[in-house]
Amino acid sequence: MEVKILDEKNRINSIKLNQSITGYDLLQKYYQSKDKSQIVAFFLNDKVHDLFAKISNDATVKFIFQKDVEGWKTLNYGCALVLAYAIKKVYPEAIIALANNNDYGFYLDFDYKKQLKQEDLQQLSFEMNKILNTNFPITRGCQDLTTTLDIYQDNPYAQEYAKLNLNQLTNQVCSYLINNKVRVIASSVAAYPSQLIKHFQLTSITGAYWLGNEKNKQLQRISGIADWTKEQLVAKMHEITVRRNQDHRFLGKKLNIFMFNDDVGRGLPMFLPNGMTIKKVIQEYLWEQEFKWDYQEVATPVLGSVELYKKSGHWDHYRENMFSPIVKDNEQLVLRPMTCPHHCMIYQSIPHSYRDLPIRMSEHALLYRYEASGALTGLERVRSMELTDSHIFVRPDQMKEEFKRCYHLIADVLKTFNIKIDYLSLSLRDPKDNEKYFPDNEMWDKAEQALREVLDELKLKYQEMVGEAAFYGPKFDVQIKTALGHEITISTIQFDFLLPKRFNLTYIDNQNQEKHPVIVHRGIIGTYERFIATLLEQTQGVFPLWLAPKQLVILPINDSEEVIGYSSMIQQAFKAKNIRTSIIVNETLGKRIKTAHEEKIPYIVVIGKKELNNKKITYHTYQDQKHDLVVTKDVLLKKMVKEIAGKK
Amino acid sequence: MEVKILDEKNRINSIKLNQSITGYDLLQKYYQSKDKSQIVAFFLNDKVHDLFAKISNDATVKFIFQKDVEGWKTLNYGCALVLAYAIKKVYPEAIIALANNNDYGFYLDFDYKKQLKQEDLQQLSFEMNKILNTNFPITRGCQDLTTTLDIYQDNPYAQEYAKLNLNQLTNQVCSYLINNKVRVIASSVAAYPSQLIKHFQLTSITGAYWLGNEKNKQLQRISGIADWTKEQLVAKMHEITVRRNQDHRFLGKKLNIFMFNDDVGRGLPMFLPNGMTIKKVIQEYLWEQEFKWDYQEVATPVLGSVELYKKSGHWDHYRENMFSPIVKDNEQLVLRPMTCPHHCMIYQSIPHSYRDLPIRMSEHALLYRYEASGALTGLERVRSMELTDSHIFVRPDQMKEEFKRCYHLIADVLKTFNIKIDYLSLSLRDPKDNEKYFPDNEMWDKAEQALREVLDELKLKYQEMVGEAAFYGPKFDVQIKTALGHEITISTIQFDFLLPKRFNLTYIDNQNQEKHPVIVHRGIIGTYERFIATLLEQTQGVFPLWLAPKQLVILPINDSEEVIGYSSMIQQAFKAKNIRTSIIVNETLGKRIKTAHEEKIPYIVVIGKKELNNKKITYHTYQDQKHDLVVTKDVLLKKMVKEIAGKK
Repeated sequence: MEVKILDEKNRINSIKLNQSITGYDLLQKYYQSKDKSQIVAFFLNDKVHDLFAKISNDATVKFIFQKDVEGWKTLNYGCALVLAYAIKKVYPEAIIALANNNDYGFYLDFDYKKQLKQEDLQQLSFEMNKILNTNFPITRGCQDLTTTLDIYQDNPYAQEYAKLNLNQLTNQVCSYLINNKVRVIASSVAAYPSQLIKHFQLTSITGAYWLGNEKNKQLQRISGIADWTKEQLVAKMHEITVRRNQDHRFLGKKLNIFMFNDDVGRGLPMFLPNGMTIKKVIQEYLWEQEFKWDYQEVATPVLGSVELYKKSGHWDHYRENMFSPIVKDNEQLVLRPMTCPHHCMIYQSIPHSYRDLPIRMSEHALLYRYEASGALTGLERVRSMELTDSHIFVRPDQMKEEFKRCYHLIADVLKTFNIKIDYLSLSLRDPKDNEKYFPDNEMWDKAEQALREVLDELKLKYQEMVGEAAFYGPKFDVQIKTALGHEITISTIQFDFLLPKRFNLTYIDNQNQEKHPVIVHRGIIGTYERFIATLLEQTQGVFPLWLAPKQLVILPINDSEEVIGYSSMIQQAFKAKNIRTSIIVNETLGKRIKTAHEEKIPYIVVIGKKELNNKKITYHTYQDQKHDLVVTKDVLLKKMVKEIAGKK
Repeated sequence: MEVKILDEKNRINSIKLNQSITGYDLLQKYYQSKDKSQIVAFFLNDKVHDLFAKISNDATVKFIFQKDVEGWKTLNYGCALVLAYAIKKVYPEAIIALANNNDYGFYLDFDYKKQLKQEDLQQLSFEMNKILNTNFPITRGCQDLTTTLDIYQDNPYAQEYAKLNLNQLTNQVCSYLINNKVRVIASSVAAYPSQLIKHFQLTSITGAYWLGNEKNKQLQRISGIADWTKEQLVAKMHEITVRRNQDHRFLGKKLNIFMFNDDVGRGLPMFLPNGMTIKKVIQEYLWEQEFKWDYQEVATPVLGSVELYKKSGHWDHYRENMFSPIVKDNEQLVLRPMTCPHHCMIYQSIPHSYRDLPIRMSEHALLYRYEASGALTGLERVRSMELTDSHIFVRPDQMKEEFKRCYHLIADVLKTFNIKIDYLSLSLRDPKDNEKYFPDNEMWDKAEQALREVLDELKLKYQEMVGEAAFYGPKFDVQIKTALGHEITISTIQFDFLLPKRFNLTYIDNQNQEKHPVIVHRGIIGTYERFIATLLEQTQGVFPLWLAPKQLVILPINDSEEVIGYSSMIQQAFKAKNIRTSIIVNETLGKRIKTAHEEKIPYIVVIGKKELNNKKITYHTYQDQKHDLVVTKDVLLKKMVKEIAGKK
C-alpha cells in the first residue's frame, strides 16, 4: 500500500508499505520534524484520528500539531473524558450520556438524580486535577454492536448513541476507556498522550435535552475549556467570551431573531417577528435597488423535476447535496438546490433577439441543500435558505459592462449595510488541470482577461485564486469572516458559458444567426440567512434605526388612565409614519428601561404626568443612555423619519 | 342491493333490487319524470356514466338532463367521437390520439402527415353532417389491457393512454365504437342516444403536444362546440367567446403574467416579471395593512416532519392531499399543506400570560397540496401556492372583538381591489351529525351564537350553511365566482378549539391558571395565485394604475439621437419616482401603439421633435385612446404619483 504523508507545507512524501501501521509508528519511523512532541493526532484521508489508529489501505496522512485548531479540539475532548471520570468518582450513580467538544471548548451531558450547582464545579475541578496528577491512560477500543450494547447495559444513552453512530463500514462502535475504569462512547478524538491535559476551566452547569431534541429527557451539562498552557487558557477564555458575545447564534436567541425546532426539521430556520422585520426591510430595499438597476423579478417554484436537474448537470454533479426526490404519479420532483434551470425555462419560453439582451432575471429564491447534521451552524449553515439570486442573459460583447453594473449594485448595497469586507477574490482556472474545467481555452483566456481588465478599470484590489474557478467559468467573490473565524462568500459574480449550451438557449444576432448567450450568476448579499447572521455579528445586535426590529419603545411612568391614554396617542402618531413602536407596561420603570436596553431598541421614550401637561416627551437613545432630552413628539418624529429615510 | 335515486330536488327514492341493472332500465322502470327523453346520462356515486352502465352494488344515482352542464358535456364528447369518425373517413391514414371535452366544448387530437388548414374544417363539417343524418350507433365496451393493446396495435397514442388510464379496480380499459367502425379510448362519457347530436360548429385547427407535454410529439387539434338546438348553439358560442376573454388562463398568457413548464413540474406556477410585479405590489400593500392592524410577520420553512403533522392531525385526515414524504437520515419531511403547526411551534417556544394575547402571527406562506392532474386549472387550482395566512391566539373573551378586527381588515382590502363578492357565508355544524364535528356542544353553541351576534352587529347579510363548518369550529367565508362559474373562497375567518389542545398550547390566566387559547385562522385574499386569477378575470386584465405591471410606455417617433436622448431623460424622471416605465423602439409608431394597447398599459407617451422643442410630452390613456394631451412631464408625473398613492 501507498501512504502519502503531507508535511506542514503540504509537500508530499510518498512511502510504500507492505503491512498496516499505526499513526504513532508512522510518525516515529517516517516523519521528519523537530516538533514531534507537539503532534497529538493525525488526519487520515481528511478525518481526524488518534495516533493509535491503524492505516491499512492506500491513504493520505497529515499530522496535527498542538497549535492547530483540530489539535486544540482533541485536547478539549480529552478533558471532557477526564471530567467524565471525575464525575463517576464523585457521583458514582451518575450516568454519562455523552462527552463532546465544539468551537467553544468541551461539554459533558449526564443524568443524575441531584441537580448540580455552580459550587459543585469546584469539587469536580479539584477531583480532575487530582486525576491529572496521576499517570492515568486514556485508550480507545472498538467492538461490534452487540458487544457494545452489552458493555453499556446500564446506560440507555450510550446504547442509543451507539446504535445511531454505528460505523457502517466496520460494523463497530468505538469507546474511550479512561484509566481502565470509566468507558465513554467515542464521539470525537482525544489528544495523545493524556498527560498533555493540564490546564482547564469548568465554566457552567446548565440543562440540555438528550441529543438536543426537546422531546427527550433533560439532562445536566457541564461545559468547560482547556488549553496547552496556563497563559494560552487565559487568552483563549477571553477570546471565547468576546467571540461568544458576537456569535449570531447567541445574539439571535437573545434578541428573538430566529429559532429552530426539531419537530419542524433540523437546519430549517424560522424567522421570529424581529428577524422577519429585518428580512422584510432588507427585501424591500433590495427590490428598490433591483428596480433601479433594471432587473425583472420573477417567482418560480421550490421544486423541479429530476429531468430538469439531469439536463442542467446538477443531478450528476451535485446530487449528494440535494434532498431525496418526491415520487408521485409519473413525476419525480426534488427540492431545488439552485434556481438557474428555472430561469432558463423562462428564458426559453419565448424567442429572443440580440436587441432584447441583457435580460436581467432576479429572484429572492428559496433553495434546499442537504448539509450533514454536524455541519449545521445557526443561520450560517442551514438546509433551507433564501438566495438573492439573479441570472443575467448577455451577449459576449456585453460581459464587461454587465460586470460593472453588477459590481456597482453590490458595492452600493454592502456600503448601505456597512459590511466589513475581508477581501475580494478573482477565481481562475488552473490551466494545467484539464478535467476540472469546461474545455474551451479560447473562451477561458478571453473571459479571464476581460475580468482582469474590468477589475483594474474599477481600481479594485483583489486576490487571484488559480484553480478556484467554477467548472463553467471564472468568478468574482466578496469574502467576509464570521465570528467563528469561518470565511464565507457574501456576494458573487460568475460567468457561465456552459448552461446556455446545455439548455440550448439562443438569441438571433444582428446577422440573423442563432447564438448562445452567456449567463451571469449574481448574488448581492448571498442568502438572507447568512446575511442576517453577518449583520448580527458585525453590529453585535445594535442595528441601525432603519433596520431595527423595534425602533421606538414608550414607557408610561404609571398606569393611570391619562398617562396611558397620552402614551397610546403618541404611539399611534409614530405608527402612522410606519415607525415600529411598542409600549411596555406592568413593571417598574427601571426594569423596563433595562429590558429596552437589553433588546437594543434605538429610541426609548418615557412619559409621565409632566410630559402629559407640557405636551412633550422625554427620550434617550440606546447609543447615549445617560442623556435625556425633552421635546415635542413632532421633533422626535421628524428626526426619526429623516434618519430612516437616510438608512441610518 | 339498495339503490338510492335522487330526483332533481335531491329527494331520495330508495329501492331494493336483487340483481344488477343498467341506468337505462332503472330510468324506465323506477324513475318518475315527464322529461325522461331529456335524460342523457347519470351520476353513479358522483361519477358520470352513460345510460348503459351497469349498477351492481349499493349505489346512489342521479340522472343527468340535457339542460345540466354535465349533460352538455356529454353532448360535446359525443360530437368529438363523430368528428373522429369523419376524420377517419376523409383521411383514412390519420391516427386518432384522443377525443375529449372541456369547459369550452370538445376537441380531437390526431396525428396525420398533412397539416390541415382552416378550410379543411368545412369538408369535415360536411362529412359530420352526413354521418349525423344516418342512423349510426355509438356504443361503449371494456376490455382487459392485453386485449386493448392488441386492438390498438396500430395506434401508439391509444396504447399509451390505455396504460396510463387502466382502471385499477376492474383492470379494464373502455373504448367507444362509432358506427361499429372507428374505435376511440373512452376518456369521457358520450350523450345517449347519438341521434341527439345535431348542432355543432368546428372552431379551430391548432397544434397540441401529445398529453400536453412539450417533450412529446406535436399533433393536430380540431376544437369545436355542440349544443342541443341551433339557438342554444349560437347563444353558447357567444357566451364562450365572452367567457374565454375573461378566463385568467387566456389573459395570463396574453399579458405574460405566468407560465407552467412540465420539466419544472405540473401545477407549479411561475410568475413572469409582469405577474411578479403585481404580486409584489399586493404583498407590500398587505404588509402595510398587517402592520396597521398589529400583526407580527414570521417566516417558517415549507417543510415539516411527519411527526409534526401526526400531532396536528393532518397526517391522518389530510394525507391524500399531501406530497409524499422525503426520507433522509433519521428524518421524514413533508412539503407542508398548512402553516398552523409551524406557528404553534413558535407560540409554544416561550411561556405566555393572558396579558400577551391576542398574538397575531402572520405569514405569506408557501403551501403544497397534491391536486389530481385533471383538476389543475391555471392559477385557480395549483399544487404550489402562497397563502396570506394568519393564526391569532386569543382568549375566549377576545373572540368577538378579534373577529371584527379580522373582518374590517378583509373588507378594507377587498374594497381597495374592487373585488366583486358573490356572497358571505357562515358555516355551522350539523347538530345531528355526531361524527363530523369536534364533540363539545357547549363550545359550539357559544361560538356559533357569538358569531351570529357579531355578524349582526356588523350589519352583514350572510347565508347560514348548516353542516359546512370545519371539524374544529365554525367559520365565516367570503365567496366569489370565477369566469368558469366555479365558486371559490377568497377570505376566511375560522375559530379553532382543537389545535391548541392537540399541541398543548397554553397561557396563564389572571387567576394564575393554565388555559388553552383559541386559534383564529384568517386568510385575507386567499392565495396569491387565486387572487391574481380573480383580479385578471374581474378586470379583464385592465389593471388599475397602481397594480399595472407596466404603468407608462414611451414611444419615440423616430430613432434620432436627440429624440431618443429626450425620451431616456423622460424615462429616468418617471423611474426615479418608482413609476414602471419602458421605451419601445424599432417598429412603426402605429404598430407600437397597438402593442401598448394590447398590453393594456395605462399611460402611453409619444415623443417627437415637436415635444422635444416645446419641452413637453404628448400622452393618452388606455381608457381614453382617442384623446391626446400635451403637457410638461411634471404635470403627468404629479397626476400619476397621485393616482398611485390613492390606489387608483
